[in-house]
Amino acid sequence: MKCPFCNASPEVLLYEDDLIRILIDSYPANRGHLLVTPKRHVEKWEELSFEEKIALLRGVELAIEKLKQTLNPDGFNVGINLGKAAGQTVPHLHIHVIPRYEGDTNFPRGGVRKAVLDVEDENLKLKERWIKNRMSKEETEKLRQAFTP
Amino acid sequence: MKCPFCNASPEVLLYEDDLIRILIDSYPANRGHLLVTPKRHVEKWEELSFEEKIALLRGVELAIEKLKQTLNPDGFNVGINLGKAAGQTVPHLHIHVIPRYEGDTNFPRGGVRKAVLDVEDENLKLKERWIKNRMSKEETEKLRQAFTP
Repeated sequence: MKCPFCNASPEVLLYEDDLIRILIDSYPANRGHLLVTPKRHVEKWEELSFEEKIALLRGVELAIEKLKQTLNPDGFNVGINLGKAAGQTVPHLHIHVIPRYEGDTNFPRGGVRKAVLDVEDENLKLKERWIKNRMSKEETEKLRQAFTP
Repeated sequence: MKCPFCNASPEVLLYEDDLIRILIDSYPANRGHLLVTPKRHVEKWEELSFEEKIALLRGVELAIEKLKQTLNPDGFNVGINLGKAAGQTVPHLHIHVIPRYEGDTNFPRGGVRKAVLDVEDENLKLKERWIKNRMSKEETEKLRQAFTP
């Protein structure tokens, strides 16, 4: 199977430089969910160069900045799943930047701690969110423009 | 209320240098759940210096290395909750390093995406985990020794 991040479609690609890419997550856990990836196909954190790590950090900051400009979220969950046991499904390292909006859940407390929850219907709930939380065309366009220098 | 990270008890403090601290999470989402914090009482990512950001990155890598040496996990969720809407409860920035073990949930898929889940009983489930997943004295001691130069 082709790597979905190495072969990202122009529709989801928001930013690219020598070292990193910023993509729109195709199965958003919340509206404006972005992914920051090293350009190089690398599965594990240990494989990254120091320069790439700094570039990823800057990428997360850039993603947050542009999301603030366009979607006005109230917070962010930033996180990585390292390894299958941690929920990593695509073997190309990626950092999740998930905007949060007041009232988007009744129980925000916990945040990334919930990564370990064993919720039987979590896939269903997450799938419901994909559909509900995809950005509108207008929002996507606004975000794309925010990334355009 | 005193900041629990500025006033961390020696029992939970594993590592400290000029810029950061590594602490055992008192309400572990999984066995060996650690927190990496800037030493300075800073609430938001934007308040960190570049030097502190690099130190935090190195701190996360150190935490992962020492956990691998002692608890032999199969993966990690690494993440930050930025803002109340994202589940941040302690207003002192902290990065969660949550070890994952094959079989620790039936549904690992999703990982940090689950941060947004609106699960009514999540607090109960997480509380059950606190008790079940606190490290044994022996494990804690082993981890503490791994951090001792």
